[in-house]
Amino acid sequence: MRTLLSQYWSRIAARIEPYVPGEQPKDKRYIKLNTNENPYPPSPRALAAIREAADGDLRLYPDPDCVRLRQAFSRAMGVKEEEVFVGNGSDEVLAVAFQAFFDPGNPVLFPDLSYSFYPVYASLYGIDYHKVNLADDFTIRVEDYLVPNGGIIIPNPNAPTSIAMPASDICRLLEYNQKLGRVVVVDEAYIAFGGQSMVPYISKYDNLVVITTLSKSYALAGLRGGFALAQKPLVEALDRIKNSFNSYTLDRLAIAGASEAVLDQEYFKEITGKVRHTRDRIASSLRQAGFEVLPSASNFLFMRYPGKSGSEIFQKLREAGILVRYFATPRIADYIRVTIGTDEQMDIFYREITRIVGITN
Amino acid sequence: MRTLLSQYWSRIAARIEPYVPGEQPKDKRYIKLNTNENPYPPSPRALAAIREAADGDLRLYPDPDCVRLRQAFSRAMGVKEEEVFVGNGSDEVLAVAFQAFFDPGNPVLFPDLSYSFYPVYASLYGIDYHKVNLADDFTIRVEDYLVPNGGIIIPNPNAPTSIAMPASDICRLLEYNQKLGRVVVVDEAYIAFGGQSMVPYISKYDNLVVITTLSKSYALAGLRGGFALAQKPLVEALDRIKNSFNSYTLDRLAIAGASEAVLDQEYFKEITGKVRHTRDRIASSLRQAGFEVLPSASNFLFMRYPGKSGSEIFQKLREAGILVRYFATPRIADYIRVTIGTDEQMDIFYREITRIVGITN
Repeated sequence: MRTLLSQYWSRIAARIEPYVPGEQPKDKRYIKLNTNENPYPPSPRALAAIREAADGDLRLYPDPDCVRLRQAFSRAMGVKEEEVFVGNGSDEVLAVAFQAFFDPGNPVLFPDLSYSFYPVYASLYGIDYHKVNLADDFTIRVEDYLVPNGGIIIPNPNAPTSIAMPASDICRLLEYNQKLGRVVVVDEAYIAFGGQSMVPYISKYDNLVVITTLSKSYALAGLRGGFALAQKPLVEALDRIKNSFNSYTLDRLAIAGASEAVLDQEYFKEITGKVRHTRDRIASSLRQAGFEVLPSASNFLFMRYPGKSGSEIFQKLREAGILVRYFATPRIADYIRVTIGTDEQMDIFYREITRIVGITN
Repeated sequence: MRTLLSQYWSRIAARIEPYVPGEQPKDKRYIKLNTNENPYPPSPRALAAIREAADGDLRLYPDPDCVRLRQAFSRAMGVKEEEVFVGNGSDEVLAVAFQAFFDPGNPVLFPDLSYSFYPVYASLYGIDYHKVNLADDFTIRVEDYLVPNGGIIIPNPNAPTSIAMPASDICRLLEYNQKLGRVVVVDEAYIAFGGQSMVPYISKYDNLVVITTLSKSYALAGLRGGFALAQKPLVEALDRIKNSFNSYTLDRLAIAGASEAVLDQEYFKEITGKVRHTRDRIASSLRQAGFEVLPSASNFLFMRYPGKSGSEIFQKLREAGILVRYFATPRIADYIRVTIGTDEQMDIFYREITRIVGITN
């Protein structure tokens, strides 16, 4: 509601519909399966590096280019250092990418059911967009994107559906958009839990931008580290935008902790492997119990129970002390999105949700 | 230089001239007086809070509203919690303010010699601006701003000049702009070292936005904490923009450290007092030796020596192991900007600069 004083708001501030993130409860009463965090703690090496960086040098600005982190991540991902852009979480990297590659007047394409931050970025920067409907089975139909566009952004695996698309499909988009002179952004926030990463294709496609994050697979949502991987000229465009709004987006502690986390590939593989294992086990149990669970390549499940509303299940789980995510959006209002927790947490979740929908174990 | 591949750049990415921050040398050979950092370490309480926060909870997203930090800062500044906006350094807060309060087509006013990031923000968001010349003595002539405008942004004290303006002058701008329905942003990055803060006027003026930072006076440039203080509707506009580009701009470590730092007012007063004392002592010595030193209300000096070029002094200081800031800008090309370091550092600086300009001690 506009108040009298909002005469001082800019037109954008008055018009924009901000993104609403999943709830971050202040207490710890809940089993928190609502924002796709990792149930395991971050790499002990990362925590040690942060404690070590908490010293008098915090009086000094961080390295604005985050060279140490770019080097570490380029080594971990097998790309060149100049092919790495670093930002304050992948949300910020996405915002910068919208400004660096998309223009007003030429609609950007993304799926209708997808990360609900994309249309917010577009509105914030005055960029037109067109939502392309997913197929009835919630997969992305690549043919629907082979039309004139101002750029494409696709999450792989997609959220909240959890479904991955094959690299060969994304290659078709890249080849089509090369002819248009437009970029394809692949948002790989969940790729470590399944799906084919496009990172090996960076050297092949000069219009490919892969965005990823430490939040989920590296268990560092609280540290804010996001990346874009692309050929050097595209990284340069991202750097130009970033250096035009904030020279120092990552603090010294985040640079230290993130660098060490990405070098600890053994730990990364251990915790992502555990999450995948728990996911496959619980998805199988849920299907056997009669739930519809979409095929997940991510660290969450997108699921429903025939004849039950998503909002009701969401609410009853909440009452039982379990937070999941529910979207009051046409086509998916029957579904809930459930982050994969520890085995113990998922066993409690299974017990409660089967009770809620009336299955007797 | 545009390469073939920059066909993929957006128009803004191709057009923008990014801000270039002061050098952050990777080694420690220099006496670093070039980016207005505090020479003293941050509050020991802040460092302890960071070490404590480096635990398994880093797997969880931070509080997107930074309530703990808003509460701590509101207590320290004597304003209401709802009157505090938090961002990733004051650079980010300024960027958000440009989007929240300024519109294209109605030029924003700021001084011609001022923080050189202002025109970059304006270009990034397509906002028109008009640079208002400082007087010959580098003061801000308030009359020049009493013209139709889309908003005003003034640093107090100004950088790089170090000169403060009286609160009564800023009140005139606020009253004039209230009638226009436009905001006045006062950038108080350096206010803890001198000058009259506008914070006590927040309850009086519904169009006042005060922006400040932990980087300089709290010795936390490496942590990235910035604030805007204003009446609730203006804070709401800032939150709307921030929540449309990045839900979580401050990581858990920064929230923990910054909260503790602002509560440690005793330490804050101790280190800002020491810097002011060193500044006054060294400014006095420099003036006696024949330097022109502008009256500084900040943690830096803006100075020249008659008959010597700023670039030459800058270069020779660098060769002597001392980094200062030099701007190759008309009217101030004879000047250097020198951050106040410790007493020992400033004594070395004094010895070297008098040698360089040919004064025999």
